[in-house]
Amino acid sequence: MDIVSIIDKKRKGLSLTKEDIDFMVMGYVRGEVADYQMSAFLMSICIQGMNREEIFYLTDSMLHSGEILDLSIFGQNTVDKHSTGGVGDKTTLVLAPLVASCGVNVMKMSGRGLGFTGGTIDKLESIVGFKTSLSEEEVYRQMQDIHVCIVGGNQDLVPADKKMYALRDVTATVESIPLIASSIMSKKLAAGSKKIVMDVKVGRGALMKTEEEARCLAKTMIAIGEKYGVKVVCVLSKMENPLGYAIGNGLEVKESIEALKGEYAPDFYELTLTLATEMVAMGLEISREEAKEKVMRNFESGKGYEYFLKLMQAQKGENKVHISKNYYEVQSEKEGYIHSIDALKLAVLSLQLGSGRKNLNTEIDHGVGLWLLKKPGDYVKKGDGLLRVYYANTDIAKEDVLESFVIHENKKEVSSILLDILK
Amino acid sequence: MDIVSIIDKKRKGLSLTKEDIDFMVMGYVRGEVADYQMSAFLMSICIQGMNREEIFYLTDSMLHSGEILDLSIFGQNTVDKHSTGGVGDKTTLVLAPLVASCGVNVMKMSGRGLGFTGGTIDKLESIVGFKTSLSEEEVYRQMQDIHVCIVGGNQDLVPADKKMYALRDVTATVESIPLIASSIMSKKLAAGSKKIVMDVKVGRGALMKTEEEARCLAKTMIAIGEKYGVKVVCVLSKMENPLGYAIGNGLEVKESIEALKGEYAPDFYELTLTLATEMVAMGLEISREEAKEKVMRNFESGKGYEYFLKLMQAQKGENKVHISKNYYEVQSEKEGYIHSIDALKLAVLSLQLGSGRKNLNTEIDHGVGLWLLKKPGDYVKKGDGLLRVYYANTDIAKEDVLESFVIHENKKEVSSILLDILK
Repeated sequence: MDIVSIIDKKRKGLSLTKEDIDFMVMGYVRGEVADYQMSAFLMSICIQGMNREEIFYLTDSMLHSGEILDLSIFGQNTVDKHSTGGVGDKTTLVLAPLVASCGVNVMKMSGRGLGFTGGTIDKLESIVGFKTSLSEEEVYRQMQDIHVCIVGGNQDLVPADKKMYALRDVTATVESIPLIASSIMSKKLAAGSKKIVMDVKVGRGALMKTEEEARCLAKTMIAIGEKYGVKVVCVLSKMENPLGYAIGNGLEVKESIEALKGEYAPDFYELTLTLATEMVAMGLEISREEAKEKVMRNFESGKGYEYFLKLMQAQKGENKVHISKNYYEVQSEKEGYIHSIDALKLAVLSLQLGSGRKNLNTEIDHGVGLWLLKKPGDYVKKGDGLLRVYYANTDIAKEDVLESFVIHENKKEVSSILLDILK
Repeated sequence: MDIVSIIDKKRKGLSLTKEDIDFMVMGYVRGEVADYQMSAFLMSICIQGMNREEIFYLTDSMLHSGEILDLSIFGQNTVDKHSTGGVGDKTTLVLAPLVASCGVNVMKMSGRGLGFTGGTIDKLESIVGFKTSLSEEEVYRQMQDIHVCIVGGNQDLVPADKKMYALRDVTATVESIPLIASSIMSKKLAAGSKKIVMDVKVGRGALMKTEEEARCLAKTMIAIGEKYGVKVVCVLSKMENPLGYAIGNGLEVKESIEALKGEYAPDFYELTLTLATEMVAMGLEISREEAKEKVMRNFESGKGYEYFLKLMQAQKGENKVHISKNYYEVQSEKEGYIHSIDALKLAVLSLQLGSGRKNLNTEIDHGVGLWLLKKPGDYVKKGDGLLRVYYANTDIAKEDVLESFVIHENKKEVSSILLDILK
């Protein structure tokens, strides 16, 4: 067995054995496989694909490259949640306390944002004082007390994924269902999750561009879960327009708080309640209908918000969110109905404002971003505000903002962003 | 234009522009494109391929990465020769003096061997005293005097190819017609060749495994040549069994000298005379028939050997070749006709003996190798010698040698190794 022969095998489109994959993954973690060999290998996987067995082997190799935790200490009703990443995706901030308020344990490890998708940890760090790093004891105590906890990723979990992901990011090898599925699932399995709700997004503002790809990714992750006796439910939703109103860390926290208090954009509401229902049904092992009822009740009664405040208190978050004081409105130059708002274009503009990072060493500005004043389906006149730009050191071009909005004379029916639920 | 987007384009199977390719190749030479990015890019080319235009761009980028020489100073009748590499391929040693004796200028720059294929420079260095490194002035004077010169590659030509080749070798990205064609042709163009005869080999002992691939490579190189007004003739031949009798540097020199004196294996004779005929026809711009007559005359009269001696004298080669004093015979354990001798297996065994290098820093042993006592079609009895093993520090397993020979009771018709000549 040697490195070049294994790469050659995948280049030719042949199937790899468990030994081949272990050899590459463990060799890479140990530094015996060079970066340039791993990147050629990853590219061959991107183009030639992997069958189910190979994906299981890859997930397993990555999983065993580091520590493996056991969340079962928090009980059978512990549920994890993961999003494949979208624009304006702040669902975790609402979901975690809302689901916990229904009697489900939510111990969420989150990451930082990279590229155009944000990370929950960055969002939470826009809350003054909020601690995203807790000791094992602190986590345990908090889970006992309030059943919800959101912390940064454990550095000892899946070192293979950390090293491979950094390489994929700079070698155009991110877009690959086998690589995405094994990366997500190895991290979830290492974190000890036994029940997982996946928010799988499809469209120009997501990693998966077509519904077909998204379904394939979902089925692959469900199959990996089955191998380990882990239940995975995948909620497929459209990511063409930004989710909700806000893009940018502090602004997304503000929107989440408003939503928990009863003021929300319809798409954000729909997706969040669907995900919450799946999490509660899974965690308590009750029907979807019963779960939905519980979720609605706690949402409307403000119990979800109450848990958000408990979470803030437990993790030392103050009643103050970083949001830039400098903002202006961009006004429409057309009259008509908004047919679409390009999520990817706005994500790139928000990145330019400083809300995200191009690589993991970039400092981000928690206060900047965009706040939509209109959503698809809305009617606008010339001079009506389309969105607010919150800026600090750099500004963006008005034309770029306007280009993101498609406005026509004819009415636009707005359909649900939900596509399907797979389990 | 950025590195990741260009790699991504090829990953998706899209066509690259001249600017894309220049950006990657020049960026790599300057160190702005990392090894791990270039290897992912090369893998995407290996799998997705390149169209003709892209191959022209790649060749051109590589060609302009370094110095470009002009061989026209030696006259219109200067011909270059290149082999895609095979087992026991010592044709240059016979061709260069034989063709020069017919009035054609042969200024050959050769390389060292890597992997299972040998390099002419390694072979010549098994001749005691032979100088493979000459000054420009020495080359010029020698060409005036005896019209033939064989030197090591100029380090300033095509630096992009040197860097890319070293990377391809360790990332399973060698087997790719666009990469092989652009690598060979950029080097030949940079060396200033205007007329080139290519020895394109097909089979288990060659880089091209099928005739279809070999034809494709040949046509690609001919098309690249046309772009630069350079004539390329490709002789396609089978490389299933080793060429001639010897594998290993000193032994191949010995076989070449014997051939020039009139003792030769039929396959080696056939291929060498065909290549010589093409070179003479091209160099003197005469018909194939006239060229063949000239070649045969000089071969049979010993004028080719005379030029070999002139070459030896000019480049200080002594009448002494490194060949190991330790050798033994491996005898057949079967009776019957030899149907085939696995070129690749024997090449690997010769490598094990120390005749080749796994990487460019390995020291090689010029004296070791294998000498076939039988060729396909020959009849052997139990106990008849099949080949001689010349060894020094390491030995090989007798079973491995025997496994390389396929012997059956029924007779074996031996066909020509020549497949076609493309121009």
